[in-house]
Amino acid sequence: MNGLIVGATQGIGLGFVRKLLLDESITKLFATYRDRARATELFALQDQHSDRIVCLQVDVTEEAQISAAVQQIQAQVDRLDCVINCVGVLHDATLSPEKSLRQIDGDRLLRYFQINSVGAILLAKHLLPLLSHRNRCVFATISAKVGSIGDNQLGGWYGYRASKTALNMLMKTASIEYRRKNPQAIVVVLHPGTTDTELSRPFQRNVPPEKLFSVDRTVEQLLTILSKLTEADSGEFFSWDGSRLPW
Amino acid sequence: MNGLIVGATQGIGLGFVRKLLLDESITKLFATYRDRARATELFALQDQHSDRIVCLQVDVTEEAQISAAVQQIQAQVDRLDCVINCVGVLHDATLSPEKSLRQIDGDRLLRYFQINSVGAILLAKHLLPLLSHRNRCVFATISAKVGSIGDNQLGGWYGYRASKTALNMLMKTASIEYRRKNPQAIVVVLHPGTTDTELSRPFQRNVPPEKLFSVDRTVEQLLTILSKLTEADSGEFFSWDGSRLPW
Repeated sequence: MNGLIVGATQGIGLGFVRKLLLDESITKLFATYRDRARATELFALQDQHSDRIVCLQVDVTEEAQISAAVQQIQAQVDRLDCVINCVGVLHDATLSPEKSLRQIDGDRLLRYFQINSVGAILLAKHLLPLLSHRNRCVFATISAKVGSIGDNQLGGWYGYRASKTALNMLMKTASIEYRRKNPQAIVVVLHPGTTDTELSRPFQRNVPPEKLFSVDRTVEQLLTILSKLTEADSGEFFSWDGSRLPW
Repeated sequence: MNGLIVGATQGIGLGFVRKLLLDESITKLFATYRDRARATELFALQDQHSDRIVCLQVDVTEEAQISAAVQQIQAQVDRLDCVINCVGVLHDATLSPEKSLRQIDGDRLLRYFQINSVGAILLAKHLLPLLSHRNRCVFATISAKVGSIGDNQLGGWYGYRASKTALNMLMKTASIEYRRKNPQAIVVVLHPGTTDTELSRPFQRNVPPEKLFSVDRTVEQLLTILSKLTEADSGEFFSWDGSRLPW
């Protein structure tokens, strides 16, 4: 089996790489990073497992990089069995979630969409050939419960919420096209729960300790879900405990 | 009562202006256009009703234009009672709905988001003061059933679908913030049904005649819905027949 983890520099993505390297059924694991300078932990894993892991540079906002990485994967394997896209931004040097409408900024909203929504569907576009074999395969993307419209009680976080909602629609739409190419392709979006990573760090204050998962725990929970998915689950939105979330 | 129709040059927006001018309870009707050269029908209405209708130039991708228009409205009235945002793009010189992943283009996706999603929430940001009075008011945005994730059976149309889904989330989130400022503010998104306008024209072939509404019929149906809404309906997604749509 061949796997691909997109956004493997840190956090949940790096956790998936660590865990999947322990799984001997995975013969080849591709892992992408955006910023070489921040990918030291990933490269350390590559040094230890140079026969099984292949690191590729991918900034999902650059379609040419996605296309080049897919070509490199195709040069080595003819199919992928498991793809997990962990790329996402909540805050960075220029972005921070809006508390109110007053903080809305058009360019920053577009950046949320570009990274959290558009990047994922560009991946889906270029990965389709590698997932169009006639065997079970999983293409999972990390979404977030705050991207659920039906679950939205608190408001705020306009850009992050809407970009995850858009992501959910894009992957739902992709699941329909994937199914036509491979009836055993399973395309899902996942809510990982609040996980102790850089993404959630500024917002952990009100999270009760038992609801703040270690990366290890999150990765284990999500892999359990992925292992149980059937074709009928394609196009759906799962929470870390395996329950289905409303759109 | 004061109303505002955003995107009133043609189609459903222009239809709302025509219909609301027949309603004598509307004392002042603001109507926006993006391209003066294409707004001849709107200006003709202004010539006939120069005491009641005020035309304003607004390109929703330019926040400064939204802000300037709102200032002009505030100079004339101290509140709005009904706002209907009819701006949206499905196809134009550079955009056309994607039939498959192969046709996905990052920049074009972002343009869908910019016009269909970001524009609406920038309006919500700047209109909040005019809708924060303590009386019933309605802020409706034209969305589309193809923006419903739960209803998506056919796939395709990635950018349009996702931008309408994002719009739905943004307005749901805005409804929560609006309610805090004015418990009687009702923020909704509407599916107008396929209406005989330039937007739907290239895609009408498979629409049965009884499902293709005239602008007049659509406007009447949507105004009927808006007139019946209560505070409990805020944040919801209504179809032309008054039924609620899944997210």
